[in-house]
Amino acid sequence: MSTTSRQRIVTATIELLRRQGYGATSVKAIAAAAHAPMGSLYHYFPEGKRQIAAEALRSAGAVYIHLLPLLMDPHDDLPAAVAAFFQAAADDIEHTGWANMCPVGTVAAEIADTEPGLREVAAEVVELWMGAGTRYMMGRTFAGGRLADARARELVQALLGALEGAFVLARTMRSAEPLLAAGRALMPYAATLVTPTPAGRSTSEQA
Amino acid sequence: MSTTSRQRIVTATIELLRRQGYGATSVKAIAAAAHAPMGSLYHYFPEGKRQIAAEALRSAGAVYIHLLPLLMDPHDDLPAAVAAFFQAAADDIEHTGWANMCPVGTVAAEIADTEPGLREVAAEVVELWMGAGTRYMMGRTFAGGRLADARARELVQALLGALEGAFVLARTMRSAEPLLAAGRALMPYAATLVTPTPAGRSTSEQA
Repeated sequence: MSTTSRQRIVTATIELLRRQGYGATSVKAIAAAAHAPMGSLYHYFPEGKRQIAAEALRSAGAVYIHLLPLLMDPHDDLPAAVAAFFQAAADDIEHTGWANMCPVGTVAAEIADTEPGLREVAAEVVELWMGAGTRYMMGRTFAGGRLADARARELVQALLGALEGAFVLARTMRSAEPLLAAGRALMPYAATLVTPTPAGRSTSEQA
Repeated sequence: MSTTSRQRIVTATIELLRRQGYGATSVKAIAAAAHAPMGSLYHYFPEGKRQIAAEALRSAGAVYIHLLPLLMDPHDDLPAAVAAFFQAAADDIEHTGWANMCPVGTVAAEIADTEPGLREVAAEVVELWMGAGTRYMMGRTFAGGRLADARARELVQALLGALEGAFVLARTMRSAEPLLAAGRALMPYAATLVTPTPAGRSTSEQA
């Protein structure tokens, strides 16, 4: 029961941050959205709004970490996997009526200069994404071979940056065009990254 | 004198939005930062904070529209121009101590779901950038020829999206790496866009 109540506060905070950002979200609004008394909020999060927001970013981040493998696994060809990743993002954002797909990115952008502790939490989440994405890219084969090791992290950074920026443009312009442009623009690069697997090296040795 | 006072309010608002976002910025804080009495603020902007913020986004947007030509003009080679664009962004953001380079993008991301009027202003600004960038790309020659017409807007969308997203990641992680990765990732795509100028067609006919 107490876990449920704590989780309800975190979930409500994710939704408020997603919709209206950090500055416009009060502890009172979080309590109301979570149907939790203020005493309960301060019981679980004695440091208040900053602490709840930090937990919300970590919690949202832990879900998103599975998206890259989920969307890319069905595709043998790396450029096709990149295109599918952005196509899925375009479909999702359009179907939700241009909702904010990544509160981690937007809250980080809003508070990077004013909330150093929360910025560090956002940086931790992004670093987790980068690490997991890099390991995924290095741990699988693609049509034509595998990813050249040194480029896996660069690819994940480019994918994540392009996704975050295209989300902002798509929400602003109410158009999926920026997401589709991002996917098409990264395909020629993706095609340069796959090199034939050297003979005698197994998947487990390279991973 | 009155123009100066109005411009001081707008400039102060751009800086507050850049640093702390829309939700955390009050009319009172704008008045204090602009050294303007509240009466003066409401004289120039009777609709208050939304109206001042709209003017701030338009004003910031009008400056940034010149950046793409400024940074790309020295480069004959389109992939090299793309790399130089992101290298300059990386240098700038690092030298300012990871300041927010684009209040239009961050404010748009923060308010897209809650302030429809302000979102429309941000969309106008982004559309102006896209139009000016597309015309620039179509209006000049690069080493090897010109840009295939239909791809100019797609390129500008990809550049702008990658830039906005990499800015967010760079500020969050305090690292220029995402901007440099974005530049490198867009170079192979840029190399596919330039096609030989057809004989007998002049620059003015194509522009």
